[in-house]
Amino acid sequence: MMRFARRMSSVHRSFIREILKVTEDAGIISFAGGLPNPRFFPVREVAEAAQHVLSSAGPSSLQYATTEGFPPLRELIAERYARKGVHVTSRDILIVTGSQQGLDLVGKVFLDPQDRVLVERPTYLAAIQSFGIFEPRFRSVCLEEDGVSLEGLEEALGEGDARLFYAIPNFQNPSGITWSAESRGGAARLLQGSSTVLVEDDPYGELRFIGRDVPPVWSSMEDPRAHAVLLGTFSKIVSPGLRIGWVVAGPEVMERLVIAKQASDLHSNILSQRIVHRYLSHCDVEAHIETIRAGYRAQRDLMVDMVGRVFPPEVTCTKPEGGMFLWMTLPAGVSALRFFEAALEQKVAFVPGQAFFPDGGGDNTLRLNFSNSDQAMIEEGMTRLGRVYAELQERAPAVR
Amino acid sequence: MMRFARRMSSVHRSFIREILKVTEDAGIISFAGGLPNPRFFPVREVAEAAQHVLSSAGPSSLQYATTEGFPPLRELIAERYARKGVHVTSRDILIVTGSQQGLDLVGKVFLDPQDRVLVERPTYLAAIQSFGIFEPRFRSVCLEEDGVSLEGLEEALGEGDARLFYAIPNFQNPSGITWSAESRGGAARLLQGSSTVLVEDDPYGELRFIGRDVPPVWSSMEDPRAHAVLLGTFSKIVSPGLRIGWVVAGPEVMERLVIAKQASDLHSNILSQRIVHRYLSHCDVEAHIETIRAGYRAQRDLMVDMVGRVFPPEVTCTKPEGGMFLWMTLPAGVSALRFFEAALEQKVAFVPGQAFFPDGGGDNTLRLNFSNSDQAMIEEGMTRLGRVYAELQERAPAVR
Repeated sequence: MMRFARRMSSVHRSFIREILKVTEDAGIISFAGGLPNPRFFPVREVAEAAQHVLSSAGPSSLQYATTEGFPPLRELIAERYARKGVHVTSRDILIVTGSQQGLDLVGKVFLDPQDRVLVERPTYLAAIQSFGIFEPRFRSVCLEEDGVSLEGLEEALGEGDARLFYAIPNFQNPSGITWSAESRGGAARLLQGSSTVLVEDDPYGELRFIGRDVPPVWSSMEDPRAHAVLLGTFSKIVSPGLRIGWVVAGPEVMERLVIAKQASDLHSNILSQRIVHRYLSHCDVEAHIETIRAGYRAQRDLMVDMVGRVFPPEVTCTKPEGGMFLWMTLPAGVSALRFFEAALEQKVAFVPGQAFFPDGGGDNTLRLNFSNSDQAMIEEGMTRLGRVYAELQERAPAVR
Repeated sequence: MMRFARRMSSVHRSFIREILKVTEDAGIISFAGGLPNPRFFPVREVAEAAQHVLSSAGPSSLQYATTEGFPPLRELIAERYARKGVHVTSRDILIVTGSQQGLDLVGKVFLDPQDRVLVERPTYLAAIQSFGIFEPRFRSVCLEEDGVSLEGLEEALGEGDARLFYAIPNFQNPSGITWSAESRGGAARLLQGSSTVLVEDDPYGELRFIGRDVPPVWSSMEDPRAHAVLLGTFSKIVSPGLRIGWVVAGPEVMERLVIAKQASDLHSNILSQRIVHRYLSHCDVEAHIETIRAGYRAQRDLMVDMVGRVFPPEVTCTKPEGGMFLWMTLPAGVSALRFFEAALEQKVAFVPGQAFFPDGGGDNTLRLNFSNSDQAMIEEGMTRLGRVYAELQERAPAVR
């Protein structure tokens, strides 16, 4: 009879990944996934970069490598930040095996059992899963249209010593919401006065297709290295399958992240680090990002438009300025899970929103992915969703 | 003032990786590393495999992928086991980001703080570091010439409920020792009668150049899926930089490993998984492994021979039948750390053995790597080591 660690009784298979299995059948129009659109993957450029790296660096592109990451790639990431006015050096950057590993390492470095972790409400499920391994207590803070509720954050910070506050200020997964500059400044001030470390996750920041970039909360802080870590990834602008992300942190945190990473996987895939570096330094990645943005924007516009056309006005959605997700709110009392089940019978899928609420709620919300689709799928899928919803409402109108 | 998790006060940067930094200077002959020899990396074949994968699978070789791993690669690993008489199915196999991640996941799944973990004495340092994150207590069990001491193991198991027993039965790192069939059978019987799970790490199993393969302890068990996990890697036979390893486990453990892996990095690099699969299924990997074995054997033979020639008879070494390491024992009272410091002045490096003893001891032992060298380096390096040792002994003979 094997005994397992206590933590295994409180973590579960990702609900989303289980839903994704259901929706993998050919013939299902799925808005459930969180996948970037593979038609934008630079397959040929990656192939060229791989050839270049293997023929020029040879065996050293296949040997064990340093835990911190390939130095020229760390330099390049620091330079890209500098161009956006975010001042970090390559020494502040740790290459990780996808930013998901960044979350795991942050959990390892900061979390003891029963520590409090603040998250946005709703929040990114996989972060809950990563941190959950370290057995903290989650406390969610209300997310408003222009960012985290500052009153809510102040109240949560005042309740005691929260170790971390996890947030996605750009085009959040799942809500699509972006924090305003005011919201960022306010949160920065509150966090600087506390011992709570901000974990600022920014997987979608480069996918803005409306409006202007807002600097990260990191940049609004006087001494971000003592109050925050910032996570980034190449998954959305190059490709996710290479599992190359990074963590920005000050020296005190970095020292510990490196130890945690040595223990976790020694170092990240060096061939892929070199491929990404070669690609970024020899191809016009900014033009490539523009192409992705234009494609996602067209799909987002169509999906937002379709929500207005196929649903009654009491069904609302966010209108994200970037990213990959749109968030729908059904009238109170209408179950998004029942809607999901009925939609699946009509071969359309999305993620019921309750999965994104670590302490309950959100039964009438749902997440729609618009990146991994095309115009025809969005038109057809949304039309079916509207029909399914109307039928559900006819059979059992919401109690309001 | 940031607060860190309690575990960070008990884990440290890997001593070996710190030593490696010292020995990275050009001009140092280093027997300190644990690196496979890059002259055997199949660079051209990996380049061809990368081209094939990217042109045939296209974007799906760069997209998010399943946590369990690329199914054809899992099949192929199961088939390779079957050819050696080890019966596992592809469902028993989880692809991980180097077998180091296998250790991290095993720690996540099994270890609560203060749990007891048995290890060989000496043992692989990075395992201590991986498990150490989960704050267990280590208890070492004596390693004899033909494997773990069965009396020692029985005694340690009798002391109470140890959660794991971590062992490397083939050409162990650091000692080079291989468990005999009798030793494996005895350990299997003892473990089957206990609730302790065997973590059988086998990174070097395919690098046997003398004698015949001995089946893994896993195969000596009546119901290994209830008593063991088995770790493997492509790091030594293809290349470490791709970070592709695997864990073999029964369904009860696998279910939890998959959850832990989702939380850790979602899945392993899919491009590299496909490259390794293509390489293994379209190149003569067995011939390649023969080439590595022949190369390592020649280097091992020379190094063993040099130990006999340049050291006095009271300095002994193991004569490993495979793998990458040789283990030297100096007379009691002679400090390998002092020897290390003196050797470094003469531009030769090794790893002082005490680093491999989690509960102290081993001051007069050291590890020599013979894989990442060539004949000239071994002759010159060992000659220098002999000279340094003789000088040390002249100045301060060992108290015996």
